[in-house]
Amino acid sequence: MTVKLGLVGTGTVGGGCIDILKNHREEFKRHYGIDVELARVCSRNPEQAIEHGVEDIFTQDFHDILDDSDIDIVIELIGGTTVARDVVLGALRAGKNVVTANKALMATHGEEVMRTAEEAGKEIAFEASVGGGIPIIDPMKHSLIANRIDSVMGIVNGTTNYMLTRMAEDDMPYADVLAEAQAKGFAEADPTADVDGLDAAAKIAILASIAFNSRVTIDDVHAEGIRNITPLDLEIAKDMGYCVKLLAHAHRTEEGIDVRVHPTMLPLSHQLATVNGVYNAIYVVGDAVGETMFFGEGAGSGPAASAVMGDVLEVARHLQAGIPPFVGCTCTDKLPLVPMEELKTKYYIRFAVADRSGVLAAMAGVFASHDVSVHSVIQRGKKDGNSVDITYVTHTAREKSVRAVLADIAKLDDVLREEPSVIRVED
Amino acid sequence: MTVKLGLVGTGTVGGGCIDILKNHREEFKRHYGIDVELARVCSRNPEQAIEHGVEDIFTQDFHDILDDSDIDIVIELIGGTTVARDVVLGALRAGKNVVTANKALMATHGEEVMRTAEEAGKEIAFEASVGGGIPIIDPMKHSLIANRIDSVMGIVNGTTNYMLTRMAEDDMPYADVLAEAQAKGFAEADPTADVDGLDAAAKIAILASIAFNSRVTIDDVHAEGIRNITPLDLEIAKDMGYCVKLLAHAHRTEEGIDVRVHPTMLPLSHQLATVNGVYNAIYVVGDAVGETMFFGEGAGSGPAASAVMGDVLEVARHLQAGIPPFVGCTCTDKLPLVPMEELKTKYYIRFAVADRSGVLAAMAGVFASHDVSVHSVIQRGKKDGNSVDITYVTHTAREKSVRAVLADIAKLDDVLREEPSVIRVED
Repeated sequence: MTVKLGLVGTGTVGGGCIDILKNHREEFKRHYGIDVELARVCSRNPEQAIEHGVEDIFTQDFHDILDDSDIDIVIELIGGTTVARDVVLGALRAGKNVVTANKALMATHGEEVMRTAEEAGKEIAFEASVGGGIPIIDPMKHSLIANRIDSVMGIVNGTTNYMLTRMAEDDMPYADVLAEAQAKGFAEADPTADVDGLDAAAKIAILASIAFNSRVTIDDVHAEGIRNITPLDLEIAKDMGYCVKLLAHAHRTEEGIDVRVHPTMLPLSHQLATVNGVYNAIYVVGDAVGETMFFGEGAGSGPAASAVMGDVLEVARHLQAGIPPFVGCTCTDKLPLVPMEELKTKYYIRFAVADRSGVLAAMAGVFASHDVSVHSVIQRGKKDGNSVDITYVTHTAREKSVRAVLADIAKLDDVLREEPSVIRVED
Repeated sequence: MTVKLGLVGTGTVGGGCIDILKNHREEFKRHYGIDVELARVCSRNPEQAIEHGVEDIFTQDFHDILDDSDIDIVIELIGGTTVARDVVLGALRAGKNVVTANKALMATHGEEVMRTAEEAGKEIAFEASVGGGIPIIDPMKHSLIANRIDSVMGIVNGTTNYMLTRMAEDDMPYADVLAEAQAKGFAEADPTADVDGLDAAAKIAILASIAFNSRVTIDDVHAEGIRNITPLDLEIAKDMGYCVKLLAHAHRTEEGIDVRVHPTMLPLSHQLATVNGVYNAIYVVGDAVGETMFFGEGAGSGPAASAVMGDVLEVARHLQAGIPPFVGCTCTDKLPLVPMEELKTKYYIRFAVADRSGVLAAMAGVFASHDVSVHSVIQRGKKDGNSVDITYVTHTAREKSVRAVLADIAKLDDVLREEPSVIRVED
């Protein structure tokens, strides 16, 4: 049996999939007995189809693929939650298996997609939606399932990791680094999804759902990005033995699931601390396995196509062996979410304040009034000579208390000179 | 359908499996619909069975498990290649699926085990044989199969990684570190398998077979251990921007498979360089995915049991769904092995030599006579005042030429004061 594939989307990742099929189709047959054939390709862009030499099987209408009874697996690589949703749900309802790289779709409409797949008796696979080429969803759904997963922390956005690395290593301000990332093609013209942590939020929603067997959507994830991070913060962090990463967190706590994305200070000895540039890594803690980490390229044609085609070959193998659809939705529990205000962690807070007597005492009073206990204070003069940077690291405190501290300090008369930098500290 | 398990071996890993079943059996049912029951336990040691509360299902004769027609999956955790081979082959022939953590068996008799499984139409799974709890075999056999794997490099022996870390960080000599590792239970009374690289050789044989779809056995692997490594070498390496790891290598080359285990100098910026202590990590390069790395605890009760039970639950899921055995032997190719003498790499060689004129010139002559081109030479006086350390780093050279250099320098009259330290350099 030859398993027939319908590809929707011929951008970077789609092109990578076409390349893999061209290069390795014979090996898939010889090594694994898996026989796959690219039968139909859909794109809005006929030029891309010609570029990849697939003009003879090309269409601009995805319905041609959904309506083609020969197609066994539909590969959705157009992204977004509108047309992509129609393609994915339509394909499943038309009795086709689906492989997608679409994090936004799975983090927003995951429940609907999983339910539709189960009703249709078809498979849905989405390894490429998180961490590019890094195998993470499959290991969590298979190799690690004997564990109660307690924690998932990931550097899952290559753009911001590249920017933070560049800021730290080359002392470049945010705006310059963003412009460079855009020039190099690492960041979009509208960088919002990356720099505000929304891309990472979608990914951690997917991972949290799998890790805790409880549905988490992108709307459940508190997301803060890196716009307020300065090279000075990175320098101070380094002096304290830390690095700063935009980290996606998902922790199992007694109160429920704690899931969030924000800049995080990590000890330089942490395994995630050496993950630099455009690389991604996901750190998973299970009750039996202990600490594990999965590292690799988080984006790009080859890595993402590796994950997509891994899924395609797995589904094709099932079809050839006559295996019924394999893993349905595993969100069997309904765990509560911990509200962000209830978060308990340590905080790094840098204030640029007026350089005059009484300021430090006034600020200390505010911290005390909200029961936020301070671990250390560092004062450094600013270059302008009129203001100083005062950096606090707190003991473990509650988010809502720290927010109250920030609000009250903002109200102090003629004290603050800039927006404070707030970075949560993971020890 | 309840899938019945027969466990052979109640040591560290077996105990971990019993714990996982006690803690999580209900979750496996609720989340994944997988229902497993520990039906029979075999051990030479009745006290361990009592300790784990399984005396009612205990036997000292593994044939009781092989002959029990109710048992669906046999878990072999006794290790070695004699009785374990009888258990594994006997179980397969008796129509049972097998999960094993046995690297020696799979690296020595892998072909026989795979063939027996295929003939019997049963599954054989062995994730725990490499890297303890780290998912590596399953990701290579599934998530990464769309790739041509070009390289696998692993820190796959926790004992020696602990010892090298301790030597480097605390300037302790080999013998002291070994004694400490033995006292802490990280090293066996007879440490040969670990310190001579044989344990790592078995593991890389298994990984190479999967990566290159070509059978590699432990006898094919050139193995050197860490007995000759001194803190001085680690210090010099660090000054040069390198660390030293006992690395298991498997590379695809134009001449064939290059597979070997030996101390290796790695740049400090390499992702494997920060893997310290008893941790393991496996670095895999594929043509589509690029660089990936899998990190975690390489040994111990919980991690190994996590991998074993991951396999058990996967096989149980297949049995419940009526799925025929899944992946047979994938060694469909017969690639040649590159003989060790033909290896081309860079070398670090430290000689302790007599401190007198003419020595350096004589040695330079030997390097030149075998066409081994030297990149750098560092000379440092020894504390005894009578000898000096001369450390060469070569350009890429052939192993047989370097061996000829070593042999000729050993023959120089009254020059060498100690065995030279030879460490291959990976850039």
